[in-house]
Amino acid sequence: MRVEPFPDRLARACREKGTSVCVGIDPRVRMLPQEFRPNHDSPRAQAEAVAGWTRALLDVVAPLVPVVKPQVAFFEALGAAGWAAYHETVIAARARGLVVVADVKRGDVGSTAEAYAEAHLELVGADAVTLSPYLGRDSLEPFLVHCRLRGKGVFVLVKTSNPGGAELQDLDAGGEPFHLRVADLVDELSRDAALVGDCGMSAVGAVTGATYPAELALLRERMPLAPFLVPGYGAQGGTAQDCAAAFRADGLGAVVNSSRGLTFAFRSGDHAERFGDQGWRASVTAAVVAMRDALAAAVPAHGP
Amino acid sequence: MRVEPFPDRLARACREKGTSVCVGIDPRVRMLPQEFRPNHDSPRAQAEAVAGWTRALLDVVAPLVPVVKPQVAFFEALGAAGWAAYHETVIAARARGLVVVADVKRGDVGSTAEAYAEAHLELVGADAVTLSPYLGRDSLEPFLVHCRLRGKGVFVLVKTSNPGGAELQDLDAGGEPFHLRVADLVDELSRDAALVGDCGMSAVGAVTGATYPAELALLRERMPLAPFLVPGYGAQGGTAQDCAAAFRADGLGAVVNSSRGLTFAFRSGDHAERFGDQGWRASVTAAVVAMRDALAAAVPAHGP
Repeated sequence: MRVEPFPDRLARACREKGTSVCVGIDPRVRMLPQEFRPNHDSPRAQAEAVAGWTRALLDVVAPLVPVVKPQVAFFEALGAAGWAAYHETVIAARARGLVVVADVKRGDVGSTAEAYAEAHLELVGADAVTLSPYLGRDSLEPFLVHCRLRGKGVFVLVKTSNPGGAELQDLDAGGEPFHLRVADLVDELSRDAALVGDCGMSAVGAVTGATYPAELALLRERMPLAPFLVPGYGAQGGTAQDCAAAFRADGLGAVVNSSRGLTFAFRSGDHAERFGDQGWRASVTAAVVAMRDALAAAVPAHGP
Repeated sequence: MRVEPFPDRLARACREKGTSVCVGIDPRVRMLPQEFRPNHDSPRAQAEAVAGWTRALLDVVAPLVPVVKPQVAFFEALGAAGWAAYHETVIAARARGLVVVADVKRGDVGSTAEAYAEAHLELVGADAVTLSPYLGRDSLEPFLVHCRLRGKGVFVLVKTSNPGGAELQDLDAGGEPFHLRVADLVDELSRDAALVGDCGMSAVGAVTGATYPAELALLRERMPLAPFLVPGYGAQGGTAQDCAAAFRADGLGAVVNSSRGLTFAFRSGDHAERFGDQGWRASVTAAVVAMRDALAAAVPAHGP
């Protein structure tokens, strides 16, 4: 049986849900709704609390969005039990039909990269991972094997949404910012025919922050086959309009992530008043719907 | 009580052992000595085998070397049980007086970086971690808090030893290779007085590959306070002479890592004949001693 290429699965999921919203899952224990707060401070108790919350969160978001992005750092901070919770979260998300992008930002030499690919794409079973490009193409290639043979995907950091990202990423490198040279590497890798799906997009994607809207259009031109994972929406300041240039004319080509702005909206502002801790599920739903509608107004509609 | 700064602890350990050899711990299950090979293929059985091997390996190397560098990818590939084995390995190494550099190459935005710091430097308890610089200084700063307050250290990727590393790291950026701009960032961070120890080195170090000896001297000049973690010795082609320029005149300032060239030497070449599987402990000892002697012949002696 032919394995469905990652970009086709991603496009299908976005069409089915009618949106490209990605829910970032950053389990900060202190932010969890009261019903999930652990009784004591041990990493195991905290990891169990996190696993309970992610299952409940996935029940809320699975009908609404195509993709979730667990941030592995918050699971690692809870040790081996946290790793088990991460694994459970990925399994639970896939069981609910969600595409899972594990936000791991790994980057290491050949055989070590292969161990990371085995860990996150196979053992844990994520559909895709985020990768850091600093070690060059031999640090990325071991993941591409899993893309070609197993329908997996990668999103390589190109232009990140954090304030300090520009410091190195925007250094002049031969007349253009360094991150455009990284974009050229991603573009080259994305053109491998074995990685391109029927939808015309590749299994090799890029992380391109919403907080730099002027560059998104340029990056879309430079990497026409790469799906974009766009962080920085909401809490980090990016708007739906900022994200529009990441998409193709057919409404595909990007997923836009928001994490605490969706999952922990009930902790601040008008959501704290309207929903509060007990109403966290309704708060998540309202925040996701608002983001979906904002994106729908700014971004071309998905094709059939 | 004043916490001993990381560079002072590292210098003390190197002086006490009379060498700057770092043993890289890459637990590839298929490479383990027969006595540790798992009976079945489950991640848990493999992780238990790995934990048993790392304890035995640490007993062999603890009297000989100051530093070990577990590569977390190989533990992650064994899931939650592998994470537990990683944690046990760090505890066992520290209990044997070894300085532990967790080779994690993490790099992420502010609060996520803080979760990684908490995971590896506090919960797991490594003395230092390797970091990737692509996201800029706000991805590094959360780790520096642990350096200042808790005597921890970091080694930021500057110039890596893999063949593809040059692709992005050597791109021209304003008349010099990009990695020298990363070196300038590391140098700037390393000069924070709260990070500099009595030995005159900083808690902020750099990863600088042995496979580019011509650049090591230049990098040593550009980052005079940064301890260097030098990978690429042995199996990757770097020689003791190649590493000499990483050191200061007093013999401090760098640790040189070899992983499979030490731990799995018994699997190939004359070590396979001389020691074989059953003699793996003697093989590790002989390989460490040979590397120690080669470095001692090429590198300035440690001061008192």
